[in-house]
Amino acid sequence: MPYVNIKITREGATPEQKARLIAGATQLLVDVLGKNPATTVVVIDEVDTDNWGVGGETITVRRKAGK
Amino acid sequence: MPYVNIKITREGATPEQKARLIAGATQLLVDVLGKNPATTVVVIDEVDTDNWGVGGETITVRRKAGK
Amino acid sequence: MPYVNIKITREGATPEQKARLIAGATQLLVDVLGKNPATTVVVIDEVDTDNWGVGGETITVRRKAGK
Amino acid sequence: MPYVNIKITREGATPEQKARLIAGATQLLVDVLGKNPATTVVVIDEVDTDNWGVGGETITVRRKAGK
Amino acid sequence: MPYVNIKITREGATPEQKARLIAGATQLLVDVLGKNPATTVVVIDEVDTDNWGVGGETITVRRKAGK
Amino acid sequence: MPYVNIKITREGATPEQKARLIAGATQLLVDVLGKNPATTVVVIDEVDTDNWGVGGETITVRRKAGK
Repeated sequence: MPYVNIKITREGATPEQKARLIAGATQLLVDVLGKNPATTVVVIDEVDTDNWGVGGETITVRRKAGK
Repeated sequence: MPYVNIKITREGATPEQKARLIAGATQLLVDVLGKNPATTVVVIDEVDTDNWGVGGETITVRRKAGK
Repeated sequence: MPYVNIKITREGATPEQKARLIAGATQLLVDVLGKNPATTVVVIDEVDTDNWGVGGETITVRRKAGK
Repeated sequence: MPYVNIKITREGATPEQKARLIAGATQLLVDVLGKNPATTVVVIDEVDTDNWGVGGETITVRRKAGK
Repeated sequence: MPYVNIKITREGATPEQKARLIAGATQLLVDVLGKNPATTVVVIDEVDTDNWGVGGETITVRRKAGK
Repeated sequence: MPYVNIKITREGATPEQKARLIAGATQLLVDVLGKNPATTVVVIDEVDTDNWGVGGETITVRRKAGK
């Protein structure tokens, strides 16, 4: 009954890509720890680039600077 | 000063229902552990059904399949 | 399939009290939103009083000051 | 490589204010623990006032009551 | 710069298994979304079976019942 | 009533350092957003180096490699 939370910036991930993240994370728990996929929960949070920072800067600023 | 985070799928919970979740979770901490309600914080996250998975599938897919 | 995370300070909650928190939080989601208890997950985090702060002070300090 | 998550109510924080939170939290980890800012991540969640409770009430209700 | 949090019950996952979870989750973000692995963070939380509930029961109780 | 969660590796942060993190994060919310410190909560999670990964490797492995 693992719980996985994936946080990414909101930059256009498609429903298909998000479905692949959910399927892949669930399978990882099955493969590595033998967990039951039926009770494995995956939640994806998409975060605005103004609300995510690394290196002390927002991703919005980093994207403009070409980082 | 407990902190409670409730994550549910975004499927039409009303402000009244969310107020009941907040009141109920706060009362639970009072009843079981004698916590002070004045400093008990409850945060509800509503998550799109494309972003929530169980059994390796998104809730969007499961709803279409009648699960 | 809700997910509930309850964070409390580590100050001697018993297994019975934690079981009551889990049962109560699960029932709350059933009562308010009609959620399926079989797939409702509750995780309790117990946090050392040195690692929890409110009002800019650790709980360790507040407990010594009789707050 | 610390990770900081800041949750606030969604009440009009500007991009500039959020950038200051990110810069300030990153600097705090540098100053106190000597962490590398380049791998320090800060994520800000803005939560609707209907979805945040304290004292068993939503912030929406508390704001109307002048609290 | 994704952030992944994996919560599992504390039931003997080895350092090697945890390293595989970290490598696998990181690779998943590379494969599906083209994320940079150098800034992808994975944090694993191991939770006591008294502190994890599903179906309104603790995992401790469910393990004893053979679930 | 903001909530701040700081996750760091468990590598010897002292109670004094953790108190400074709590005081500093609380002050940051006061300075930037005018939040009430009395209801600002800060929770620090210390995570074993086997349980934290970046670049697809655990911190345990990275420390041994001198990273």
